[in-house]
This record gives sequence, C-alpha cells and structure tokens, in this order.
Amino acid sequence: MGFELSSLISNKLQMLSTSDHASVVSMNLFVALLCACIVIGHLLEENRWMNESITALMIGLATGIVILLVSGGKSSHLLVFSEDLFFIYLLPPIIFNAGFQVKKKQFFRNFITIILFGALGTLVSFTIISLGAMEFFKKLDIGSLDLGDYLAIGATFAATDSVCTLQVLNQDETPLLYSLVFGEGVVNDATSVVLFNAIQNFDLTRIDHRIALKFFGNFLYLFFASTLLGAITGLLSAYIIKKLYFGRHSTDREVALMMLMAYLSYMLAELFYLSGILTVFFCGIVMSHYTWHNVTESSRVTTKHAFATLSFVAETFIFLYVGMDALDIEKWRFVSDSPGISVAVSSISMGLVMVGRAAFVFPLSFLMNFSKKSQSEKVSIRQQVIIWWAGLMRGAVSMALAYNQFTRAGHTQLRGNAIMITSTISVVLSSTVVFGLLTKPLILFLLPQPKHFHSTSTVSSDLGSPKSLSLPLLGSQQESETDLGNHQGTTDGGIGRPSRLRMLLNAPTHTVHYYWRKFDDSFMRPVFGGRGFVPYVPGSPTEQSTNNLTEQRT
Amino acid sequence: MGFELSSLISNKLQMLSTSDHASVVSMNLFVALLCACIVIGHLLEENRWMNESITALMIGLATGIVILLVSGGKSSHLLVFSEDLFFIYLLPPIIFNAGFQVKKKQFFRNFITIILFGALGTLVSFTIISLGAMEFFKKLDIGSLDLGDYLAIGATFAATDSVCTLQVLNQDETPLLYSLVFGEGVVNDATSVVLFNAIQNFDLTRIDHRIALKFFGNFLYLFFASTLLGAITGLLSAYIIKKLYFGRHSTDREVALMMLMAYLSYMLAELFYLSGILTVFFCGIVMSHYTWHNVTESSRVTTKHAFATLSFVAETFIFLYVGMDALDIEKWRFVSDSPGISVAVSSISMGLVMVGRAAFVFPLSFLMNFSKKSQSEKVSIRQQVIIWWAGLMRGAVSMALAYNQFTRAGHTQLRGNAIMITSTISVVLSSTVVFGLLTKPLILFLLPQPKHFHSTSTVSSDLGSPKSLSLPLLGSQQESETDLGNHQGTTDGGIGRPSRLRMLLNAPTHTVHYYWRKFDDSFMRPVFGGRGFVPYVPGSPTEQSTNNLTEQRT
Repeated sequence: MGFELSSLISNKLQMLSTSDHASVVSMNLFVALLCACIVIGHLLEENRWMNESITALMIGLATGIVILLVSGGKSSHLLVFSEDLFFIYLLPPIIFNAGFQVKKKQFFRNFITIILFGALGTLVSFTIISLGAMEFFKKLDIGSLDLGDYLAIGATFAATDSVCTLQVLNQDETPLLYSLVFGEGVVNDATSVVLFNAIQNFDLTRIDHRIALKFFGNFLYLFFASTLLGAITGLLSAYIIKKLYFGRHSTDREVALMMLMAYLSYMLAELFYLSGILTVFFCGIVMSHYTWHNVTESSRVTTKHAFATLSFVAETFIFLYVGMDALDIEKWRFVSDSPGISVAVSSISMGLVMVGRAAFVFPLSFLMNFSKKSQSEKVSIRQQVIIWWAGLMRGAVSMALAYNQFTRAGHTQLRGNAIMITSTISVVLSSTVVFGLLTKPLILFLLPQPKHFHSTSTVSSDLGSPKSLSLPLLGSQQESETDLGNHQGTTDGGIGRPSRLRMLLNAPTHTVHYYWRKFDDSFMRPVFGGRGFVPYVPGSPTEQSTNNLTEQRT
Repeated sequence: MGFELSSLISNKLQMLSTSDHASVVSMNLFVALLCACIVIGHLLEENRWMNESITALMIGLATGIVILLVSGGKSSHLLVFSEDLFFIYLLPPIIFNAGFQVKKKQFFRNFITIILFGALGTLVSFTIISLGAMEFFKKLDIGSLDLGDYLAIGATFAATDSVCTLQVLNQDETPLLYSLVFGEGVVNDATSVVLFNAIQNFDLTRIDHRIALKFFGNFLYLFFASTLLGAITGLLSAYIIKKLYFGRHSTDREVALMMLMAYLSYMLAELFYLSGILTVFFCGIVMSHYTWHNVTESSRVTTKHAFATLSFVAETFIFLYVGMDALDIEKWRFVSDSPGISVAVSSISMGLVMVGRAAFVFPLSFLMNFSKKSQSEKVSIRQQVIIWWAGLMRGAVSMALAYNQFTRAGHTQLRGNAIMITSTISVVLSSTVVFGLLTKPLILFLLPQPKHFHSTSTVSSDLGSPKSLSLPLLGSQQESETDLGNHQGTTDGGIGRPSRLRMLLNAPTHTVHYYWRKFDDSFMRPVFGGRGFVPYVPGSPTEQSTNNLTEQRT
C-alpha cells in the first residue's frame, strides 16, 4: 500500500505552485469547522434562540472575516461555490432523509393542501416577485436587466429553502405545520422546473389558454413521473432485498444497496429531466415503508442513523459554506460605490418575498378553512402566521440560482448583475438569521402550549382526511403514528388486522385510504415485504431491543 | 426548494454540448453497476473461487467491452481516472475501517514482524524490481527510460494492495496471516513515502552511510509522527464525546463527529506530509478502543456498520473502475504495433514482483523462526507460501503511481511510457484475477483444516508476544479476542479486573503489555472512556441486544 503518490504530487506541486497544498489546507480547515459546528451546536442545544443552521452560518461568517483579515482582504472563502457539489452531493441526502423520516400519515393527510401550497403558491409568489421587481427596480439605477432577468429574480426568490424549514420546525411538536411547510417546499421544486422550462421554451409575449394548458400538463407529467420513478426505485430495492435475503450474509450489503439505490433514484430523475428532489423524497417514503422492514435489525438501526447523520452533515456544510461565501470581496466591489441602492434592492426583495408568500398562504388557508365545517379542524390565523413566517427563509438554492443567472459568461462585471448577487446574499443571510432566530420564540409566543397544539393539529388534520383525494402508503393507525421511530406494532401485523378492518368498516371512511390498505395488505406487502411480512432472519428483530435502540432522539 | 438550476444547466448545456448530460448518464450507469456488483457478489457468496473484488473487476471489464463496442471503439470508461478521487475519497474509509475492525491483539502481537515485513521487505522488493527492470528492459526495445523511471517502476510494483488482501484473507479464519499481510501493507506506505522523497531529494549517485542514516531517521520520524497524529485525533474524539456527553441529545452528532474526526486525521497527515494511511489506520484503532465505547448503543451499531459499508462501497468502486479503465483504447495504441514486447514487459514485471516478494518473505520468516524455540510457534513453510502469495496482488495504488509517472506532461505519446502503462494494467489485472481466484483454494489446499490452523496460529502468535517490544492498546484477554464484533465482556470491566491482574502477575509476562494495561486502566480509560468507563446513558447498553445486533456477519 503505497501512498507515495499523493505526497509526490504535493511535493511536485509545491515546487511549481502551492495550489494543491492550499486545497489540503482548505479541506482541513473546513472539516475542522464542521467538527466545531457540531460541538458548538451541541452546547447550544438548550438555547431557545439558536439552532444548528444559525450556528453554522455564524461560524462561517466569523471564519470568513478571519480569512479576509489574514489574506489582506483578498479572499474570504475556502472552497469555490460549486452548484454540482450542492445539487449532486449535498441536497440528495437531505431530501432523502426527510422522506425517510417523515411522518407519512401527516404528509398524506394534507396532500391536497401541500400540492396547492407548493404549486399554486409558488406561481403566485413568482408572479408577484417578478412584477414587483419589474416595477421597483426599474426606478432604481441598477443597470440593464431584461425580462429574463426579472423572471429569474422571481424564481430565485420564490424558491423556498426546505433545509432551513427542517431545522426550524419540529416534526414532533408541530407536525401539521412541519408537513405543510416542508411538503410545500418539495412540491415547489416541480413547479420551479416547469416554470423555468416555460420561461425558456414558450413565447412569453403571447400567453393564451393553450400555453396555460400545456404548462399545466407539463407540471402534471413532471409531478407524476417523478413520484412514480421514486416509488419504483424504492419498491425495486424492497423486492431485491426481500427476494435475495441479503441479511443472511451481510448487513453491509443491505445498507450499501439502500444507499446506492436511493442515490440512483435521484440521478435517474436528473437523467430524464425530472425533479430529482420529488423522486428522492418519494423513494425515501417507499423505502421506509417497505425496504426498511425487510433488512436485519442492525441494518435498520444503521440506515436510520446513517441517513440522518449524512443529512445533518450536509446541512451543516451548506450553512457553513453560505456564511463563508457571503463575504467574498469581489462581489461587494460594485456595491461599495452605491451602498444605498444595494440596501434598497435587498429591502425591496425581502419585502416582495414577504408579500408574495402572504399572497398565497392566507387566501389558500382561508379556502382550506372554508371547505371545513367544525371550528377545530380549521387552521387558525396564528398557525397561518407561522406557516407564512417559516417559509420566508431563502437559502443555498436561491444562491445557486442567482449565481447561475447573474454570473455566467463574464457578466459579473456588469453593475446590475453584481447588485443582484449581493442582494441575494443579503436576503439569504438576513432571512436565515432573522427568521431562523425568531421562529422558535414566535411559535412559543403564538402557540404557547406545544402539547396542546400537538393534539389540536392532529385533530384538524384528522378531520381533513375526507377532503384528501389520495392517501397512498398510509398504514394502520398505530403504524403511521409511530413510523420509523417506535415500531412496537411489528408483531401485530397478523393479530391487529381484524380489529383494524372492523375499525375502518365501522367508521364512515370509505376513502382511498381503505382501498389502499386492502391493496397494501393483500398485494404490496406480500410481494415487497414491509411490516408483518418480514422473512425470518436468525437472531433478528427482538422488539424490545429495537425500541431501546430507536427511542433515543433521531 | 427549487431544482430549476440543475435542469436549467442541463438544458443550456444540451444546446451547447452534451457533456453535462453525458456525465449524468455515466454516474447513473456507474451507480447501477455498483448495485449490480453488490447483488452478484451476494449471489456468488458461497462460491469458493470468486470474491467481491474479482466480481467487480469482471463486471468492469464486461462494461468496458460493451461501451467500447457501442461507442465504436472510441472509449471504454465512464469516469476519468482521478488520483484525487482515489486518495482523498476512496482510500481513507477503507483503511480507517480496517483499523476500526482489526483484531488489535493479533496486530500488536506481531508488531515487530509487521514492521520488518513492511519496511525492510518493501525496500528489498523495490531494489530487486528496480535492478531487474534496469537489467531486462534495457535489452528490450521499449524506448527511453531514465534512472528515475526505473526507480518509479520499482516503487510502482513494490506497492502492495491492502484492499485486495482485505478481500482475499479472512481475519477470522487466518488471523496471523491476515494481520501480517495487511499490517505489512499499511507500513509499506510509510516506507514508500520515504522512498519517493529520497528519490527526489537525495543525490542518488553518491550513496554512503550518512544518506542511509538520514533515510532511516526520516522513516522513523514519518512512522512515529503519523502514528502519534492518528492516536491524538482518536483520543481527542474520545475525550470530546465523553466530556460533552453527546448521547444525551443526539446520536447523529456522535456519528458525525466520529466520521469527521477520522477524516480529519487523514487530511491532517496530508497537511504535514505524513503518511495518511498510517495515521487513519491508528486513528481507527484508537477510536475502536476508546471512542466507540463512549457513544450510545445506536451509535455503536451505526458506526460499526456504516464504516464497514463505506469501506465496502469504496472497494467495489475501485475494482469496478480498474476493470473498466483497463480497456481504454488510447493506451493500447502503441502496444498493438509490438504486442510481443508488451507481453514480455508484463511477464518480466510480474516475475520481478514474485522474486522481489520471495526475496524478503522467506528470509525474514526464517529469521523470525530462528529466534523462536518451540516448533509450534514457528511460521511453517506452507504459511510462508501463503504470506508470499497473498501479497503479490497489485491494485489501484500501482495504477495511480504508473499514471503519475508515465502520463504527465504529455509524455503519453512516448512509446516507452505507453508500454509501461499497459504493462502495469496487465500486471494489475492478471495478479488480481489470478491470485485473487487462487488464494482461497490455495489456503484450503495448504492448510486443510482452517479450524486447526486457527488454533495453531493463535498459539504461535501467543508465544510470539515476548518478542514484541510494544503491545500498546492491548486489552484484557477477552477484549482483544472479541474486539468490536462480540463484546460480551462490557459489564465485566469492574468484575474482571482482579482476575485479569492475577493472571498477568502469575504469568511471567512483565512485558510492555502489563505496564500498558496498568496505564490504560489507571489513567487512559478514566480520562478517555472505553470499556468499563462508559458514562451511564439512559436506555442504553443492554448487553443482550448488542450481541444480537452485532453477531451477524460484519
């Protein structure tokens, strides 16, 4: 085992230039900073204001300042912002883990609302921000921006940041809000893909109903194709692991196969120009419903925590990087000439983001409430405020979009582009810090009893189910309540069925849910495995120990 | 969450060129192939000839042929061979996992032998191969090669492939051979770094005792500094996790911190021009001795399997890639003019590798046996043959070295360089396939009763311990026997100590081991945690369930 090569290269390059060793230095610093973020985040755990994202962002900013001072104002960041790094390596584990650990029941109960928020909401937000930008920015002297630029600004600031949402909202404390805001973020993606394709491919000067219809069809195709791809990949992994009975030989193969197939679903979606985020999200849901039950107990514990850890590291990485990148001196050069305009642009953008979000959250919530009868199932105005507030954060996706639109082909030197880049950074930083810091206190202020709120939200979503058209993958009452974290019910797969059937038949809920359950029990689970249909693995599931293992915080 | 960007880029680039989408296609194919390797490897598990490396290599070759045919003979590989990819991302998890899961007792019992094999052996092998290449290749008409090239050939073919060893030898069946051959591979690295520095920095025309002494000092510095760095990073992780009591809040943070600090140790070694492999190997050993015992039970299961999985995927990746890369048509262009010379060079290289290894395995084993009294503790000639045989494989490291020496600065067009590259590929492929396929049967043939062999090897290594100068980190009898896989003894940390002390005092082994145990129990474990000194974590270690969880094959 010779390691001469790397040292050889380092030595060689050190004679020529210091670039290679410099990148080793950067990587060291970055990994050390990640460790620091974890330790400090742990120490601040009890703090009601801070969360991990803001800690990482602050550490990133502080490091940026130090580097700026050390390098004599030349550079503030260690790594070049790479869209590939973000979209190919950091985002997939985060979204997959969200799907893997999501409370399936909550998610599918609010499916229609989530779709409305994600699709219609994004469109409303995009339109308002684009029109607002056209209206206000033209009055300011910020250089030449064409129609495409304004639309891009709309798309940039309409892109919500699911990663922040995951950090700020707690799935256990506020399940309804979490599933609405996060689910919306996932659907937001499909909308955005259609939106951008539309901007590029359709003739925007002649908008008629044919184009609107095509647009709508495009969205439906993208949504269903992406979901289907995710589901198929997930089911395939379940089938392979069940049939080939991997646990017999090796836990590692099971874990590796789950990881690789999850990643494959994302890359396949990219291959077919679908929405990778939607695909990998649904792949995570299917894997947690079938595949996860087919593997050995060690693999269950390992996948649960390994996916969560990967997601956690990727999140920390993103925030650390965004904090560090914000101080890149080159971007601020133009702005220093006219700080007033930059502040104005940032403020206007932030204002438009808030107006754009308010313009769909409150009307759609009103419509949602309008369709419901009892008072308890409605989304209160306080909850609406939190939904509005928690989705205001803009993050790495907005940054990536702004970079893509305003820095390509040497356009960075243009005044308008430079101002737009710095404004995006300002909006991302300020929204993450302000909304990130204030969301926890706001929830405590508006919904003082999280326990009480938990129960009311469950009620409201419970009764919301007759409105839902589709409730796929919804398990038994116990199952969906407990999900991955606490699956006491594994052994009642056989025992519990009669009572479940009785319950369903007694209750007036001949919804999709009932048929799905029937289909799931009679066809899907026997074929793809899942709870109650797990092949016997020697020395495996003793419920007691799994509960012990999984009850610690995820 | 907008994913418009990636799609946008794909669309944009598709208009300009197909490069971006082509890389998405490659990644899809590669991930799918990795999945295929896992599934096929699983199906061939019972086969006595095949192993995972050869499966991956074969699938890589087959894919290469298909791509070659589809692309009309233009290209056979999907990804460009990147030394960074190999040394920065694929190698560290493999070596760390090897340290993490190594049987510490075996390893430290044979420490002196391992050092001799790794350091002296590599030097002998390097010298013989370099001299042999100079002697034979000059007679063949293969173009201009200077002294540096010949020395590089020596280093290339002296670099053993620990990854192959890990796959071919079984730690449980042949623990002595495994620890000797694998340990030798790790030490081989430190030697190689010194070797290359020497080739580059010393004046090779005047070799006297001063240079030899400097060389030796350099090696000692590199060895101890790398080991120390690994140990310090490992202890730091143990201390942080013990002091801050991470399990209280989050399992994910513990796992993330262990992963990041392991990686940090590797990158720090690179930063200081040390041997990253040695560092990360010892970091793995220290982490399994201290840190692993400080974390929650879920983290233990997760880290054990997650590290093994990462290592497994990285190994499969390497072999898949090597197989695919072997058919790259450009390299074979020169060779097609004179196939005879290429075959001759490959055969001579392979012969030199075999002679070079024989030249140190048998004499050093003889010396080792000479120093021992009883017959049972000697390494039999059959075992020597297996040691010789199992270390003959050359792998990705040799490839990386050959690429580095013979393809830089446009030298690929030179006849001599092209021949050396193809010869290296031939040697790597044939050695991996031939020795990989035949090692399992050879062991069965030479040592027909693996059970019996197991016991004799334990005896021989047991009695070898008085010869060892250092036995650091050696736990109690039970502990080192069981290591990570089967730690029934956790609870006997307190109970077992008196009997262990008595045992040590009764036996005439006032070796380093005894003092190390005393030091470990009285200072190291109270400070850094470890078995028997684990803080109480609610809902954590119930021995029964851990045994259940860990007894499945690692």
